[in-house]
Amino acid sequence: MYPFLPSESLLFVIYLIAITAEAMSGALAAGRRNMDIFGVVVIAFVTALGGGTIRDLTLGRFPIGWTQHPEYVYLVISAGLLTTVIAPFLHNLKRLFLVLDAMGLVAFSLIGCSVALTMDYPTIVVIMSGMITGICGGILRDVLCNQAPVVFRRELYASVSLAVCALFLSLRALGIDADLNTAVSFTAGLMLRLLAIWREWKLPTFSYGQHWE
Amino acid sequence: MYPFLPSESLLFVIYLIAITAEAMSGALAAGRRNMDIFGVVVIAFVTALGGGTIRDLTLGRFPIGWTQHPEYVYLVISAGLLTTVIAPFLHNLKRLFLVLDAMGLVAFSLIGCSVALTMDYPTIVVIMSGMITGICGGILRDVLCNQAPVVFRRELYASVSLAVCALFLSLRALGIDADLNTAVSFTAGLMLRLLAIWREWKLPTFSYGQHWE
Amino acid sequence: MYPFLPSESLLFVIYLIAITAEAMSGALAAGRRNMDIFGVVVIAFVTALGGGTIRDLTLGRFPIGWTQHPEYVYLVISAGLLTTVIAPFLHNLKRLFLVLDAMGLVAFSLIGCSVALTMDYPTIVVIMSGMITGICGGILRDVLCNQAPVVFRRELYASVSLAVCALFLSLRALGIDADLNTAVSFTAGLMLRLLAIWREWKLPTFSYGQHWE
Repeated sequence: MYPFLPSESLLFVIYLIAITAEAMSGALAAGRRNMDIFGVVVIAFVTALGGGTIRDLTLGRFPIGWTQHPEYVYLVISAGLLTTVIAPFLHNLKRLFLVLDAMGLVAFSLIGCSVALTMDYPTIVVIMSGMITGICGGILRDVLCNQAPVVFRRELYASVSLAVCALFLSLRALGIDADLNTAVSFTAGLMLRLLAIWREWKLPTFSYGQHWE
Repeated sequence: MYPFLPSESLLFVIYLIAITAEAMSGALAAGRRNMDIFGVVVIAFVTALGGGTIRDLTLGRFPIGWTQHPEYVYLVISAGLLTTVIAPFLHNLKRLFLVLDAMGLVAFSLIGCSVALTMDYPTIVVIMSGMITGICGGILRDVLCNQAPVVFRRELYASVSLAVCALFLSLRALGIDADLNTAVSFTAGLMLRLLAIWREWKLPTFSYGQHWE
Repeated sequence: MYPFLPSESLLFVIYLIAITAEAMSGALAAGRRNMDIFGVVVIAFVTALGGGTIRDLTLGRFPIGWTQHPEYVYLVISAGLLTTVIAPFLHNLKRLFLVLDAMGLVAFSLIGCSVALTMDYPTIVVIMSGMITGICGGILRDVLCNQAPVVFRRELYASVSLAVCALFLSLRALGIDADLNTAVSFTAGLMLRLLAIWREWKLPTFSYGQHWE
């Protein structure tokens, strides 16, 4: 994986859970559009690894992560195919899935920050790297499935990514130990996301109905 | 900013106006889709800086421009947020906005040409670099807002970009001074765009209704 | 062109046919959306050269192919414009066109594999490089024309790309001569695609209608 923090082992496990969960969310979106098995695999792949790909392109970081790790590609494809088999049972697993998805969002955000930090980018770019990694997979999924990205309308989805990145960098600036920082940021982000789902928190919406242009 | 022409100072001011105007156009598009504040910021960012990003990726020019200039990112985000506040008053500003947008199109096109020229690409690639910089932000905005890109249907939008690039390269080949060339190309492009809006000029449309494939 | 196999000359001719056919398919899609002439050219370009562009970005291969070969750009633009003239007659050419399109799919797939092989990527990435080159142009075309990518629903379109890549790599692993390998893989892939169209073969579809998320 990436050259990473001392707590790599913990984040690595979370990363594997994250790409698996995102692949499953992609496969379900493809199923709702009646795609064939191949389409399911593509959407699963793009949802799980697309965010990291766009981050690596944006940061000019070559070779791109997954091209050096075939095992992630196989994992993501397997998760997508498995989803077509177990989908009928998944409505019982909805809550578990939302937790996994939230873990993915938070883990991706932390990983994206860490990658940009190793490349000496300005702070705002580090935060954007975390957010790109966290949310772009879902945006690509929605564009390929021809629907307006729900990430901009779902309960604090992107805002959670921003909050996690900001917390991580703040604690780091305060000199907090990297291990502790990772654990605290991850836990806080996960709590915030789950609270937002439970309470249906939303950002204020900007509606501008007048046909202007 | 980019290593640029001697007239950098003028074009730099125009560039700042351009990314501000494009960020506002993105925020308005997001508002028409009822996105939340975060979606507004993302669409504003993509509309203003997405064209330059795609250009840099296409030309293999790393690090990508805005990652080295956090101040542009802050400017674009601020413009997007400000738009949500002032939108109710913007119908009085429609004409000003169209002028700003036209300045952005022309300025982006000239900047895109200049960047590719410094990298010794063939002429057709230089022209495409100008057009990519000029119009791709708007295309990304429309794709993310889930509508067919209006750039292909609006009054000579992309054609103006092409004309500006061609004029700029022609005058350059004739040995015209770079400052004068920039000023002439910018003015001519802006006039053409405003004339096209005023007169509702359009390119011939290719309609192929038969369901063929 | 790319540093390629000994059978370069044959594949090069097929490549030219492929980008021409894909440019025409893009122009027709633009015509169905009533785009202007400029939109037609852009969609033609993206459909023909977009797959190779995404492959080069993914593999970190700069400068991107077509930026070093202006003649391909001119060819693709010409094919797009020509299509607007000859479209009324094209319903008589539908079968020829499907054959050309199938040749493009197979040729792009083989070229994509070959490019990744020269860069020492893992096998799964080589296969994905072939598929990205083969099918991404069509995906971009459909996204820009604001419709769900048909590539995931058409008769074995992407599956043919996968089969061609797998066959090519298998024969290569067996030590088959590169020329023979190219000819066999190309012919087999073309036959498979035409059979799939003729017989209307499809992959099983994954339909997951329940509104779950």
